[in-house]
Amino acid sequence: MLLYDSPVSGNCYKVRLLLAHLGIAYERRTMDVVDRSDRPQKLGGLNPALRVPTLVLDDGRPLAESGAILWYFGEGTDFVPRDRYERAQVLQWMFFEQYDHEPAIAVVRFWVAYSGRPEAFADRLEERRAAGHRALAAMDRHLAGRDFLVGDAPSLADIALYAYTHVAHEGGFDLDAYAALQAWLARIAAQPGHVPIER
Amino acid sequence: MLLYDSPVSGNCYKVRLLLAHLGIAYERRTMDVVDRSDRPQKLGGLNPALRVPTLVLDDGRPLAESGAILWYFGEGTDFVPRDRYERAQVLQWMFFEQYDHEPAIAVVRFWVAYSGRPEAFADRLEERRAAGHRALAAMDRHLAGRDFLVGDAPSLADIALYAYTHVAHEGGFDLDAYAALQAWLARIAAQPGHVPIER
Repeated sequence: MLLYDSPVSGNCYKVRLLLAHLGIAYERRTMDVVDRSDRPQKLGGLNPALRVPTLVLDDGRPLAESGAILWYFGEGTDFVPRDRYERAQVLQWMFFEQYDHEPAIAVVRFWVAYSGRPEAFADRLEERRAAGHRALAAMDRHLAGRDFLVGDAPSLADIALYAYTHVAHEGGFDLDAYAALQAWLARIAAQPGHVPIER
Repeated sequence: MLLYDSPVSGNCYKVRLLLAHLGIAYERRTMDVVDRSDRPQKLGGLNPALRVPTLVLDDGRPLAESGAILWYFGEGTDFVPRDRYERAQVLQWMFFEQYDHEPAIAVVRFWVAYSGRPEAFADRLEERRAAGHRALAAMDRHLAGRDFLVGDAPSLADIALYAYTHVAHEGGFDLDAYAALQAWLARIAAQPGHVPIER
């Protein structure tokens, strides 16, 4: 199994973190997240969005979108709840992550820390940072009095949201005001089988 | 069951379209998509993102994010494939829709046709319209030689992508160049049980 990967991408880290928890082996092929000129050649035919992560299963079939890859491997494990409502709640948080959280927090982090030209995005920084704080505040309110995002055990929702939240500081996001969120980050990092983003 | 709804929102239409196919009854409460000042009061505690659609089940439990609501009702029906890989492919297209397609096509449509102040977004229009055409072109390439996005029957993926694609013209997107996409739109609209966005 082959993962088209980026070591710094939180979307790729989600997949690596789940596969580590599940003890599933795979090869990694690193793609550049700044120079994307080779993507049509390498990912065309595998992923309509030409993004990483893109996974190629052992039989050659491709799968794209971090959320879909998490679901493929998570189904039937403790990371996808058996209860129908809780399963939908896991997807609710995963869609929230891709629509509200990632386009603000991951994108600002990329602009500031990885793009090599943060000045090119300076005029959009304030708006996106405000959107990021709205997402972080929504998580913090939800996590007050809860150990995990859904139910009382770690799920794909925690893996999906942990990825970019735990590196939000690289984009200049100060998490000091979010006590429940910080406790949750520490709780996820302390789970047996957890691996860091860089390894 | 109560759906916090907007008649013009494609995200809400996805839910209404699936529930129509499944013959599930519900009440609708219309929310304004321009004046959002009442959302914290009405949707706070129900949806961390304060968006529509937000669903309240008969027992009072809330569910948010169109994709999660579709999954909740779609599981166990013909709209979610029985095959594990096809199920993940359905989610792949649903995440593609929320990350690449909706933020371009739905947002441009809103700016141009519903915001009441298109001039406020003029400086971002070209970039978003280009992103929308990349998403439409990716769908068109995938649909060439296929009847449906995943497998050989309609799924949640078709419902999720139909919603904003079939009204893309309201945002100024010309679909003439996308023959496979146009044939697919007609195929989805011809399905038994299909309902239009406005009714």
